[in-house]
Amino acid sequence: MFKLTFLGTSSGVPTKNRNVTALALQTSLNRDWWLIDCGEGTQHRLQHVPLTVHDLAGICITHIHGDHSYGLPGFLASAAMNGRKRPLILIAPLAVKAWLDATMLHTELFLPFPLIHVDVAGGQQVHQEPGLTIERHHLSHRAPSVGFRFAVESVKWKLDSAALRARGVPSGPLWGKLQAGHDVTLDDGTTLAAADFRVSDVQRAVAVIGGDNDTPSLLSDACAEAQVLVHEATYTEAILQKVGPGPTHSSVQRVAQFATERGLPNLILTHFSARYDNPEGMAELEAEARQHYAGNLFLAQDFASYELDAAGVVQELSVLGSRGATQ
Amino acid sequence: MFKLTFLGTSSGVPTKNRNVTALALQTSLNRDWWLIDCGEGTQHRLQHVPLTVHDLAGICITHIHGDHSYGLPGFLASAAMNGRKRPLILIAPLAVKAWLDATMLHTELFLPFPLIHVDVAGGQQVHQEPGLTIERHHLSHRAPSVGFRFAVESVKWKLDSAALRARGVPSGPLWGKLQAGHDVTLDDGTTLAAADFRVSDVQRAVAVIGGDNDTPSLLSDACAEAQVLVHEATYTEAILQKVGPGPTHSSVQRVAQFATERGLPNLILTHFSARYDNPEGMAELEAEARQHYAGNLFLAQDFASYELDAAGVVQELSVLGSRGATQ
Repeated sequence: MFKLTFLGTSSGVPTKNRNVTALALQTSLNRDWWLIDCGEGTQHRLQHVPLTVHDLAGICITHIHGDHSYGLPGFLASAAMNGRKRPLILIAPLAVKAWLDATMLHTELFLPFPLIHVDVAGGQQVHQEPGLTIERHHLSHRAPSVGFRFAVESVKWKLDSAALRARGVPSGPLWGKLQAGHDVTLDDGTTLAAADFRVSDVQRAVAVIGGDNDTPSLLSDACAEAQVLVHEATYTEAILQKVGPGPTHSSVQRVAQFATERGLPNLILTHFSARYDNPEGMAELEAEARQHYAGNLFLAQDFASYELDAAGVVQELSVLGSRGATQ
Repeated sequence: MFKLTFLGTSSGVPTKNRNVTALALQTSLNRDWWLIDCGEGTQHRLQHVPLTVHDLAGICITHIHGDHSYGLPGFLASAAMNGRKRPLILIAPLAVKAWLDATMLHTELFLPFPLIHVDVAGGQQVHQEPGLTIERHHLSHRAPSVGFRFAVESVKWKLDSAALRARGVPSGPLWGKLQAGHDVTLDDGTTLAAADFRVSDVQRAVAVIGGDNDTPSLLSDACAEAQVLVHEATYTEAILQKVGPGPTHSSVQRVAQFATERGLPNLILTHFSARYDNPEGMAELEAEARQHYAGNLFLAQDFASYELDAAGVVQELSVLGSRGATQ
């Protein structure tokens, strides 16, 4: 239903192994993909995964801070140089659009494709197309920040084959027409209505992608019917207590506790402070998460890709790109 | 005298092997270094070479185009997060400063160190400190572009040991004082003036770093007394003829011919179109260069480091960082 590929999982600054935040989201609907946040170097990361700027439907930016947005000018410039013509949706705070406008003005950046800005300060539903609805949910951070709720609905039609056989219709081309929703006329002149012989099999899935946020419970409504939550977990609770509330980030513990309270079956943590960029650090974060959450847990790595299947289970896929140093 | 470390050598867009433009320049004077251009991902590159943001004296930007400047916001933000306090000189077109001001305003970027802007539209000499003079020279590109001339002067004092021995002064601490410029008094009460017993050995070197430019001869004055020129060579002459004058770049041939006419002993080419990012492409560029230039030639690679010694010879040092993919 969803495929999530992490292009950056570090908070604030890149490390040798982790770039600053960016996440590619694909759905089972079509070849389109969405980029959520675009830290500096996202276009470099993209060269190592099987996604193209031509298939990118839109970019969602959670908040204006540089580690989530400074890759935008170069990303857009390279998309232009790569010949993109398709309009690009930009769902972002107004400050992001204002900064891009200033960037285009001062740096002689001309985009040969329309950039359609949707302000997250407007309505909750920020995008809707057949099968896909995107909502924004306000979070708590020192800059205005939102999370995004992606809901997909995939309808497959199944034929009532027993009823068709009982009606004396042999399997063949007529079955295909009925399944596609077309009424058909038999040789004896009678007409069969598609609606009488097919039933819909609707698959739904919801993924919630948080922005920087010190209060996970603000995503309580967004997580209704959600199978997976991706949320920042910048520090352990002990370090968060030590650095104080200034950075307005979440600890692993707080996110894990929220996921447990909300009954979320799958949880992917990301946006780790550079201090944890070593095996011991990651083990410490994971231990804290498992202490407070018994569900299906992942700590995201750069280039790791996760799939949410129709049964609501998230699995890590083989690493797509050459996982390695940021350069 | 100079050490040049290439952090990015690709024109326009990054490739898997080459990042967009950035060059670190060190002198034999002290630990300071200068960054010339700052394409997106320069801060990532810096993590792989033995240079720190604390030793960075200043940033010179040749022109506003994104592949030379889009790394600035993230570079400055990370320098701030790394605790830099030292004032930073920014020698750049006014558009770069205007864009950074807009970036700081819109993206909540606060720098805890002074950023001292020197506009390249002002006087030719853009920086002067003991031993180092930086000039800017106007070039021809579709955006206003400059090259930078770095001149270093390193003074070493040598003692006239024969004269000292003739005067009956035994080698020892007195020699050290005289060499350091201090007059000394002998046991017999006579005073020896340092000026009478030491001679200066002045070493001078000039490196010229071009910006994007379709007319290499505009650097003719800058190249007076220069030992090395670093210049963009975006295309072969054949491809430049094919793409036409629009991009306002130089061909390898034009730069090589200029270096020959100007009698430059060392030439380093960089800023290659992504189309040449393969062994055949680089061989083609090198062949064209050697056809028109018989001096000491290098085609820069990312992470390659070159040293200009006091004899005026450039040598490639062992690769400093882990040369590899941009990610």
